[in-house]
Amino acid sequence: MIYLDNAATSFPKPERVYVEMDKCMRQYCANPGRSGHRLALEAGRAIYRTRERLCRLFNIESPMQVVFTSNATEALNLGIKGLLKEGDHVVTTSMEHNSVARPLTALKAKGVSVTYIGCDSKGHLNPRDIERAIKKNTALIIITHASNVTGTLMPVKEVGCIAKERGIPFMLDAAQTAGIYDIDVKDMNIDILAFPGHKGLMGPQGTGGLYISENLDVLQMKEGGTGSRSEELDQPIVVPDRYESGTPNTAGIVGLGEGVGFILERGTAAIRGHEEELTGMLLQGFSQIKGVKIYGPANPRLQAGVVSINIGDGDSGEISYILDRSYGIATRSGLHCSPLAHRTIGTFDQGTVRFSIGYFNTREDIEAAVRAVEEIAAEIV
Amino acid sequence: MIYLDNAATSFPKPERVYVEMDKCMRQYCANPGRSGHRLALEAGRAIYRTRERLCRLFNIESPMQVVFTSNATEALNLGIKGLLKEGDHVVTTSMEHNSVARPLTALKAKGVSVTYIGCDSKGHLNPRDIERAIKKNTALIIITHASNVTGTLMPVKEVGCIAKERGIPFMLDAAQTAGIYDIDVKDMNIDILAFPGHKGLMGPQGTGGLYISENLDVLQMKEGGTGSRSEELDQPIVVPDRYESGTPNTAGIVGLGEGVGFILERGTAAIRGHEEELTGMLLQGFSQIKGVKIYGPANPRLQAGVVSINIGDGDSGEISYILDRSYGIATRSGLHCSPLAHRTIGTFDQGTVRFSIGYFNTREDIEAAVRAVEEIAAEIV
Repeated sequence: MIYLDNAATSFPKPERVYVEMDKCMRQYCANPGRSGHRLALEAGRAIYRTRERLCRLFNIESPMQVVFTSNATEALNLGIKGLLKEGDHVVTTSMEHNSVARPLTALKAKGVSVTYIGCDSKGHLNPRDIERAIKKNTALIIITHASNVTGTLMPVKEVGCIAKERGIPFMLDAAQTAGIYDIDVKDMNIDILAFPGHKGLMGPQGTGGLYISENLDVLQMKEGGTGSRSEELDQPIVVPDRYESGTPNTAGIVGLGEGVGFILERGTAAIRGHEEELTGMLLQGFSQIKGVKIYGPANPRLQAGVVSINIGDGDSGEISYILDRSYGIATRSGLHCSPLAHRTIGTFDQGTVRFSIGYFNTREDIEAAVRAVEEIAAEIV
Repeated sequence: MIYLDNAATSFPKPERVYVEMDKCMRQYCANPGRSGHRLALEAGRAIYRTRERLCRLFNIESPMQVVFTSNATEALNLGIKGLLKEGDHVVTTSMEHNSVARPLTALKAKGVSVTYIGCDSKGHLNPRDIERAIKKNTALIIITHASNVTGTLMPVKEVGCIAKERGIPFMLDAAQTAGIYDIDVKDMNIDILAFPGHKGLMGPQGTGGLYISENLDVLQMKEGGTGSRSEELDQPIVVPDRYESGTPNTAGIVGLGEGVGFILERGTAAIRGHEEELTGMLLQGFSQIKGVKIYGPANPRLQAGVVSINIGDGDSGEISYILDRSYGIATRSGLHCSPLAHRTIGTFDQGTVRFSIGYFNTREDIEAAVRAVEEIAAEIV
């Protein structure tokens, strides 16, 4: 199996992720932050270590500002719904995933209005359009760091500057970039950063998180046992407890810590370098095949390791199926939970076949993918 | 280490839980329900298998009615907030955990009123008190199945009958009982069942779930990518997708499936029998020690495998600390995130030392715990 579906979840993980998760499960997976016995304390320390590593990776000041969630979707819901009130206005883009667009749609019923800035047909955002869309009641600017459909990288730093100048909270959806690109919440003026644990950060599924600037008062989404201030029936406002009711995913967070540890050792430059090289190879290979249409920038420097194509008018689902069945190549077809992005690039009806690259892919994987598409194109075009 | 903190999280787990989780992580942990390639399909099948097993355990009709959450707290928040609207009234008990009491407290600001039925000093609930508290606008009855402080078993069947007769949805918090007691959603007239995956069900942390009767329209708490109806910006209402936005905790759910598989093989009667025997031993042993006060029914047939005590006026935290440090016995002290229950039994200031029994505890563990408490009591009383 050649796995090119890393934008859905990265696979495989570094060996140390498997090893430490299994060790945690077998040796110290007590309930952290609840009881005071040694196993519970060991579990608590392991979770804290993951917070610290995420702080190093994202240049976050305090580990207490890192909130664990079950995935990026939960993090986005928490940030979006916890911040926005009736009468607020949001600026976002036409390249967002449903994990941003659907919570915003749900908030319309509560009197929140949204402006979707149109991106061009390659998914590029003009930051000046963000600026022009700002209203008096704009309470949040939220953009994806890189499209999960085309890989198009967004002008995060420029948008962060605009947000800072105008005093508007800036939220970044780093679903496709955390662990691969340098993300510096201070340098980029990011007030809220949502990230999955199981993609570029190389942790297991069931993990993700949210960085919340200490200047923001974000309402929690869930109340419950926090192990702190147990005597009170009101949810405590101490962070991260306020947002982490209930027993956490200890083994998962431990695995995430190992993934982030792996990234900190290798460095994001090396990781991004590898993915950029393979993305370049894939784009180059596809560009030579008659009948293949590449979406997005088609330039490895301007996009994440995500390449969407179609072959003639072929059904994207069928091509993805052939890639799996006949070539053992895992891709994802259809709309990728991002109908807005597909409308933007003109593929709402056909969808695309998406190849997404991870750190453990090799040049041989890419060569095999190009050969497979060549053969399929020769058949159907 | 003698682990007697199973009410916080069960430890250890059956070997098959560790083995299958590691296998999933290493071999097939793709993104289920998103892509169509063979790894994604294998992950999807594994998740479905867990749903099926939970249906067998709880006598739930369709696997589609089982919603996975990250823990019981999330399940309770989803059920409570998804069902209650402004002007609604809720009947609950004075033995509830903060995972019930805090969401209800938060809803007061939204115009939901709550009646807490007082239980007696052993934690017993009179179901007639539930009936008497019902008002015209009562929209939910929610009780715990067993107190996490005293273990007191609640009259679930009687309350379920009352709820059915009056046409009011009945929600059960099975945090301390799922996997150990027979829970039959039809027989007990349970409309919503919230359960953790990492306690009696023997799965890993980061798992839990909610059964929702098909007759109820529960609003989702999060919107996002579901892998279904991706073209729509409105959250799809198909279940369980409506409630499971974002990538699930695949390896965790696989582990939960193995825990439930283990339970289905052994049978809850055998599991409950073992815990009841050890609970009886522990109660019997403690009852002989001068200065030890036992809370709750002090009768193994009337309580879950949870025994709370104090030794004289000794600080519960200090005693729990001595048990850990000097005897290698893991317990939990304090309020156990249940201040209401501690007020009910009169231990709000002192807290209690809680011993909670799991399937893998042995008679030797219990003997050691009794000896340790004997020695500590001899020192401090």
